[in-house]
Amino acid sequence: MHEKYMKLAINEAKKAWALDEVPIGAIVVYQGEVIGRGHNLREESQSPVAHAEMIAIQEASSVIGSWRLEDTTLYVTLEPCVMCSGAIVMSRIPHVVYGATDPKGGCSGSLMNLLEEPRFNHRAIVERGILEEECGDMLRTFFKEKRAQKKQSKLKRTDS
Amino acid sequence: MHEKYMKLAINEAKKAWALDEVPIGAIVVYQGEVIGRGHNLREESQSPVAHAEMIAIQEASSVIGSWRLEDTTLYVTLEPCVMCSGAIVMSRIPHVVYGATDPKGGCSGSLMNLLEEPRFNHRAIVERGILEEECGDMLRTFFKEKRAQKKQSKLKRTDS
Repeated sequence: MHEKYMKLAINEAKKAWALDEVPIGAIVVYQGEVIGRGHNLREESQSPVAHAEMIAIQEASSVIGSWRLEDTTLYVTLEPCVMCSGAIVMSRIPHVVYGATDPKGGCSGSLMNLLEEPRFNHRAIVERGILEEECGDMLRTFFKEKRAQKKQSKLKRTDS
Repeated sequence: MHEKYMKLAINEAKKAWALDEVPIGAIVVYQGEVIGRGHNLREESQSPVAHAEMIAIQEASSVIGSWRLEDTTLYVTLEPCVMCSGAIVMSRIPHVVYGATDPKGGCSGSLMNLLEEPRFNHRAIVERGILEEECGDMLRTFFKEKRAQKKQSKLKRTDS
Protein backbone atom coordinates (compact mmCIF):
# COMPACT_ATOMS: atom_id res chain seq x y z
CA MET A 1 0.00 0.00 0.00
CA HIS A 2 2.84 2.37 0.89
CA GLU A 3 4.43 1.73 -2.51
CA LYS A 4 1.23 2.59 -4.35
CA TYR A 5 1.07 6.02 -2.68
CA MET A 6 4.83 6.61 -2.94
CA LYS A 7 4.49 6.11 -6.69
CA LEU A 8 2.01 9.00 -6.73
CA ALA A 9 4.53 11.12 -4.81
CA ILE A 10 7.16 10.12 -7.41
CA ASN A 11 4.78 11.26 -10.16
CA GLU A 12 4.65 14.63 -8.37
CA ALA A 13 8.47 14.72 -8.23
CA LYS A 14 8.58 14.15 -12.00
CA LYS A 15 6.41 17.25 -12.49
CA ALA A 16 9.08 19.27 -10.65
CA TRP A 17 11.79 17.66 -12.80
CA ALA A 18 9.94 18.65 -16.00
CA LEU A 19 10.21 22.26 -14.76
CA ASP A 20 13.95 21.85 -14.07
CA GLU A 21 13.25 21.91 -10.32
CA VAL A 22 14.94 19.50 -7.88
CA PRO A 23 12.62 16.45 -8.24
CA ILE A 24 10.80 16.11 -4.92
CA GLY A 25 7.11 15.24 -4.63
CA ALA A 26 4.60 14.73 -1.84
CA ILE A 27 1.00 13.67 -1.32
CA VAL A 28 -1.35 13.66 1.67
CA VAL A 29 -3.74 10.72 2.00
CA TYR A 30 -6.93 10.67 4.10
CA GLN A 31 -9.09 7.55 4.29
CA GLY A 32 -7.45 6.12 1.20
CA GLU A 33 -8.00 9.29 -0.81
CA VAL A 34 -5.35 11.73 -2.01
CA ILE A 35 -6.38 15.14 -0.62
CA GLY A 36 -3.15 17.04 -1.23
CA ARG A 37 -0.45 17.00 -3.88
CA GLY A 38 2.71 19.03 -4.20
CA HIS A 39 5.96 19.22 -6.09
CA ASN A 40 8.95 21.39 -5.43
CA LEU A 41 8.49 24.83 -7.04
CA ARG A 42 11.16 26.85 -5.29
CA GLU A 43 12.87 28.21 -8.41
CA GLU A 44 9.72 28.56 -10.51
CA SER A 45 7.90 30.53 -7.80
CA GLN A 46 11.02 32.03 -6.17
CA SER A 47 9.37 31.25 -2.86
CA PRO A 48 11.46 29.72 -0.05
CA VAL A 49 8.40 27.90 1.27
CA ALA A 50 7.35 26.26 -2.03
CA HIS A 51 8.58 22.79 -1.03
CA ALA A 52 6.55 19.76 -2.11
CA GLU A 53 5.33 18.97 1.43
CA MET A 54 4.25 22.56 2.15
CA ILE A 55 2.15 22.69 -1.01
CA ALA A 56 0.57 19.27 -0.35
CA ILE A 57 -0.17 20.19 3.29
CA GLN A 58 -1.84 23.46 2.30
CA GLU A 59 -4.00 21.75 -0.29
CA ALA A 60 -5.00 19.03 2.19
CA SER A 61 -5.94 21.64 4.82
CA SER A 62 -8.03 23.48 2.31
CA VAL A 63 -9.83 20.24 1.29
CA ILE A 64 -10.48 19.16 4.91
CA GLY A 65 -11.26 22.73 6.00
CA SER A 66 -9.01 22.49 9.04
CA TRP A 67 -5.41 23.20 9.99
CA ARG A 68 -5.43 19.88 11.87
CA LEU A 69 -4.57 17.07 9.47
CA GLU A 70 -5.46 14.31 11.91
CA ASP A 71 -5.78 10.77 10.52
CA THR A 72 -3.74 11.61 7.43
CA THR A 73 -0.51 10.17 6.02
CA LEU A 74 2.07 12.26 4.22
CA TYR A 75 4.15 10.52 1.56
CA VAL A 76 7.24 12.32 0.35
CA THR A 77 10.06 11.17 -1.92
CA LEU A 78 12.83 12.77 0.20
CA GLU A 79 13.28 13.07 3.97
CA PRO A 80 11.70 16.38 5.05
CA CYS A 81 13.91 19.42 5.72
CA VAL A 82 13.74 21.50 8.89
CA MET A 83 10.86 23.70 7.65
CA CYS A 84 8.76 20.85 6.28
CA SER A 85 9.34 18.73 9.39
CA GLY A 86 8.11 21.74 11.36
CA ALA A 87 5.03 22.08 9.16
CA ILE A 88 4.26 18.39 9.75
CA VAL A 89 4.41 19.01 13.52
CA MET A 90 2.26 22.15 13.19
CA SER A 91 -0.40 20.33 11.15
CA ARG A 92 -0.44 17.31 13.52
CA ILE A 93 0.09 14.81 10.69
CA PRO A 94 0.31 11.50 12.57
CA HIS A 95 2.03 9.37 9.94
CA VAL A 96 4.90 10.21 7.60
CA VAL A 97 6.38 7.91 4.96
CA TYR A 98 9.44 8.94 3.04
CA GLY A 99 11.65 7.49 0.30
CA ALA A 100 15.29 8.63 0.20
CA THR A 101 17.17 9.93 3.23
CA ASP A 102 18.83 13.35 3.09
CA PRO A 103 22.04 13.11 5.14
CA LYS A 104 22.88 16.81 4.53
CA GLY A 105 19.58 18.50 5.34
CA GLY A 106 17.06 15.90 6.52
CA CYS A 107 15.45 16.68 9.86
CA SER A 108 13.26 13.61 10.21
CA GLY A 109 16.02 11.26 11.28
CA SER A 110 19.31 12.34 9.67
CA LEU A 111 20.62 15.64 11.12
CA MET A 112 17.97 15.58 13.82
CA ASN A 113 14.54 14.06 14.32
CA LEU A 114 11.91 16.77 14.67
CA LEU A 115 9.04 14.36 13.95
CA GLU A 116 9.74 12.24 17.01
CA GLU A 117 10.82 15.01 19.38
CA PRO A 118 9.43 14.38 22.88
CA ARG A 119 9.42 18.11 23.77
CA PHE A 120 6.92 19.01 21.02
CA ASN A 121 3.19 18.68 21.56
CA HIS A 122 2.96 16.39 18.54
CA ARG A 123 4.90 13.39 17.34
CA ALA A 124 4.48 11.41 14.12
CA ILE A 125 5.13 7.79 13.30
CA VAL A 126 7.79 7.75 10.60
CA GLU A 127 8.47 5.04 8.02
CA ARG A 128 11.63 5.34 5.97
CA GLY A 129 13.08 3.94 2.76
CA ILE A 130 9.90 3.19 0.78
CA LEU A 131 10.96 3.02 -2.92
CA GLU A 132 14.18 4.58 -1.68
CA GLU A 133 16.21 3.68 -4.78
CA GLU A 134 13.73 5.14 -7.25
CA CYS A 135 13.33 8.32 -5.14
CA GLY A 136 17.08 8.75 -4.72
CA ASP A 137 17.90 7.90 -8.36
CA MET A 138 15.75 10.79 -9.58
CA LEU A 139 17.79 13.20 -7.46
CA ARG A 140 21.13 11.67 -8.41
CA THR A 141 20.32 11.82 -12.13
CA PHE A 142 19.01 15.38 -11.82
CA PHE A 143 22.20 16.64 -10.16
CA LYS A 144 24.44 14.62 -12.52
CA GLU A 145 22.71 16.27 -15.50
CA LYS A 146 23.09 19.69 -13.84
CA ARG A 147 26.82 19.14 -13.37
CA ALA A 148 27.21 18.00 -17.00
CA GLN A 149 25.32 21.09 -18.24
CA LYS A 150 27.56 23.32 -16.13
CA LYS A 151 30.71 21.66 -17.48
CA GLN A 152 29.40 21.99 -21.04
CA SER A 153 28.68 25.68 -20.66
CA LYS A 154 32.13 26.26 -19.16
CA LEU A 155 33.75 24.49 -22.16
CA LYS A 156 31.71 26.66 -24.54
CA ARG A 157 32.92 29.81 -22.80
CA THR A 158 36.56 28.65 -23.12
CA ASP A 159 36.06 27.94 -26.87
CA SER A 160 34.70 31.37 -27.72
CA MET B 1 16.05 51.21 15.66
CA HIS B 2 15.05 47.67 16.68
CA GLU B 3 12.25 49.08 18.84
CA LYS B 4 10.84 51.11 15.94
CA TYR B 5 10.52 47.99 13.78
CA MET B 6 9.32 45.80 16.65
CA LYS B 7 6.47 48.29 17.15
CA LEU B 8 5.43 47.62 13.54
CA ALA B 9 5.48 43.88 14.28
CA ILE B 10 3.34 44.58 17.37
CA ASN B 11 0.89 46.47 15.14
CA GLU B 12 0.67 43.32 13.02
CA ALA B 13 0.04 41.22 16.14
CA LYS B 14 -2.85 43.53 17.05
CA LYS B 15 -4.45 42.83 13.67
CA ALA B 16 -4.43 39.12 14.60
CA TRP B 17 -5.93 39.95 18.02
CA ALA B 18 -8.75 41.90 16.37
CA LEU B 19 -9.62 38.67 14.53
CA ASP B 20 -9.52 36.66 17.78
CA GLU B 21 -6.29 35.00 16.66
CA VAL B 22 -3.31 34.49 19.00
CA PRO B 23 -1.62 37.92 18.72
CA ILE B 24 1.68 37.34 16.92
CA GLY B 25 3.05 39.66 14.25
CA ALA B 26 6.13 39.84 12.03
CA ILE B 27 7.75 42.11 9.49
CA VAL B 28 10.70 41.75 7.12
CA VAL B 29 12.94 44.79 6.62
CA TYR B 30 15.31 45.36 3.68
CA GLN B 31 17.48 48.48 3.49
CA GLY B 32 15.30 50.21 6.05
CA GLU B 33 12.10 49.44 4.19
CA VAL B 34 9.35 47.04 5.28
CA ILE B 35 8.96 44.53 2.43
CA GLY B 36 6.88 41.90 4.23
CA ARG B 37 4.17 41.97 6.87
CA GLY B 38 2.29 39.13 8.49
CA HIS B 39 0.00 38.34 11.39
CA ASN B 40 -1.12 34.98 12.66
CA LEU B 41 -4.14 33.74 10.68
CA ARG B 42 -4.21 30.09 11.60
CA GLU B 43 -7.84 29.92 12.75
CA GLU B 44 -9.19 32.41 10.21
CA SER B 45 -7.59 30.58 7.29
CA GLN B 46 -7.57 27.09 8.89
CA SER B 47 -4.08 26.71 7.45
CA PRO B 48 -1.33 25.20 9.63
CA VAL B 49 1.27 27.31 7.84
CA ALA B 50 -0.46 30.69 8.28
CA HIS B 51 1.92 31.89 11.00
CA ALA B 52 2.95 35.57 11.05
CA GLU B 53 6.54 34.86 9.95
CA MET B 54 5.52 32.60 7.06
CA ILE B 55 3.19 35.24 5.67
CA ALA B 56 5.79 38.02 6.05
CA ILE B 57 8.51 35.86 4.44
CA GLN B 58 6.32 35.02 1.46
CA GLU B 59 5.42 38.66 0.90
CA ALA B 60 9.08 39.70 1.16
CA SER B 61 10.13 37.03 -1.37
CA SER B 62 7.46 38.17 -3.74
CA VAL B 63 8.60 41.84 -3.41
CA ILE B 64 12.31 41.00 -3.88
CA GLY B 65 11.54 38.40 -6.57
CA SER B 66 13.79 35.81 -4.96
CA TRP B 67 13.56 32.99 -2.45
CA ARG B 68 16.84 34.24 -0.98
CA LEU B 69 16.10 36.97 1.55
CA GLU B 70 19.72 38.03 1.93
CA ASP B 71 20.43 41.33 3.71
CA THR B 72 17.04 41.33 5.41
CA THR B 73 16.00 41.40 9.06
CA LEU B 74 12.93 39.60 10.37
CA TYR B 75 11.21 41.13 13.40
CA VAL B 76 8.70 38.94 15.21
CA THR B 77 6.86 39.47 18.49
CA LEU B 78 7.31 35.85 19.69
CA GLU B 79 10.22 33.44 19.39
CA PRO B 80 9.73 31.44 16.17
CA CYS B 81 8.33 27.89 16.32
CA VAL B 82 9.95 24.88 14.64
CA MET B 83 8.32 25.52 11.25
CA CYS B 84 9.03 29.26 11.17
CA SER B 85 12.62 28.77 12.35
CA GLY B 86 12.95 26.31 9.47
CA ALA B 87 11.49 28.82 7.00
CA ILE B 88 14.02 31.41 8.22
CA VAL B 89 16.84 28.92 7.52
CA MET B 90 15.36 28.07 4.10
CA SER B 91 15.06 31.74 3.10
CA ARG B 92 18.60 32.56 4.32
CA ILE B 93 17.42 35.48 6.48
CA PRO B 94 20.66 36.62 8.15
CA HIS B 95 19.22 38.57 11.08
CA VAL B 96 16.28 37.75 13.36
CA VAL B 97 14.99 39.96 16.18
CA TYR B 98 12.27 38.70 18.47
CA GLY B 99 10.32 39.98 21.44
CA ALA B 100 8.96 37.41 23.91
CA THR B 101 10.49 33.98 24.40
CA ASP B 102 8.34 30.86 24.01
CA PRO B 103 9.58 28.29 26.53
CA LYS B 104 7.01 25.70 25.38
CA GLY B 105 7.44 25.81 21.62
CA GLY B 106 10.23 28.24 20.71
CA CYS B 107 12.94 26.77 18.49
CA SER B 108 15.20 29.79 18.21
CA GLY B 109 16.80 29.42 21.63
CA SER B 110 14.27 27.83 24.02
CA LEU B 111 13.55 24.17 23.20
CA MET B 112 16.34 24.15 20.63
CA ASN B 113 18.18 26.66 18.49
CA LEU B 114 17.57 26.00 14.82
CA LEU B 115 18.73 29.48 13.78
CA GLU B 116 22.25 28.94 15.05
CA GLU B 117 22.63 25.26 14.18
CA PRO B 118 26.14 24.56 12.86
CA ARG B 119 24.99 21.56 10.78
CA PHE B 120 22.68 23.68 8.58
CA ASN B 121 24.00 25.54 5.55
CA HIS B 122 22.67 28.82 6.99
CA ARG B 123 22.83 30.48 10.36
CA ALA B 124 21.22 33.73 11.48
CA ILE B 125 22.27 36.29 14.04
CA VAL B 126 19.54 36.36 16.68
CA GLU B 127 18.64 39.22 19.03
CA ARG B 128 16.18 38.48 21.79
CA GLY B 129 13.94 40.39 24.20
CA ILE B 130 13.23 43.56 22.17
CA LEU B 131 10.03 45.08 23.67
CA GLU B 132 9.68 41.71 25.38
CA GLU B 133 7.16 42.92 27.98
CA GLU B 134 4.80 44.49 25.47
CA CYS B 135 5.01 41.45 23.17
CA GLY B 136 4.45 39.02 26.05
CA ASP B 137 1.68 41.08 27.67
CA MET B 138 -0.42 40.87 24.51
CA LEU B 139 -0.26 37.07 24.66
CA ARG B 140 -0.89 36.88 28.42
CA THR B 141 -3.93 39.18 28.16
CA PHE B 142 -5.26 37.27 25.15
CA PHE B 143 -5.10 33.91 26.93
CA LYS B 144 -6.45 35.38 30.18
CA GLU B 145 -9.48 36.70 28.28
CA LYS B 146 -9.90 33.33 26.57
CA ARG B 147 -9.92 31.52 29.92
CA ALA B 148 -12.44 34.01 31.35
CA GLN B 149 -14.72 33.55 28.31
CA LYS B 150 -14.51 29.77 28.70
CA LYS B 151 -15.37 30.01 32.42
CA GLN B 152 -18.27 32.36 31.63
CA SER B 153 -19.74 30.02 29.03
CA LYS B 154 -19.40 27.07 31.42
CA LEU B 155 -21.28 29.03 34.11
CA LYS B 156 -24.02 29.88 31.60
CA ARG B 157 -24.38 26.21 30.69
CA THR B 158 -24.72 25.31 34.41
CA ASP B 159 -27.38 28.03 34.89
CA SER B 160 -29.60 26.88 32.06
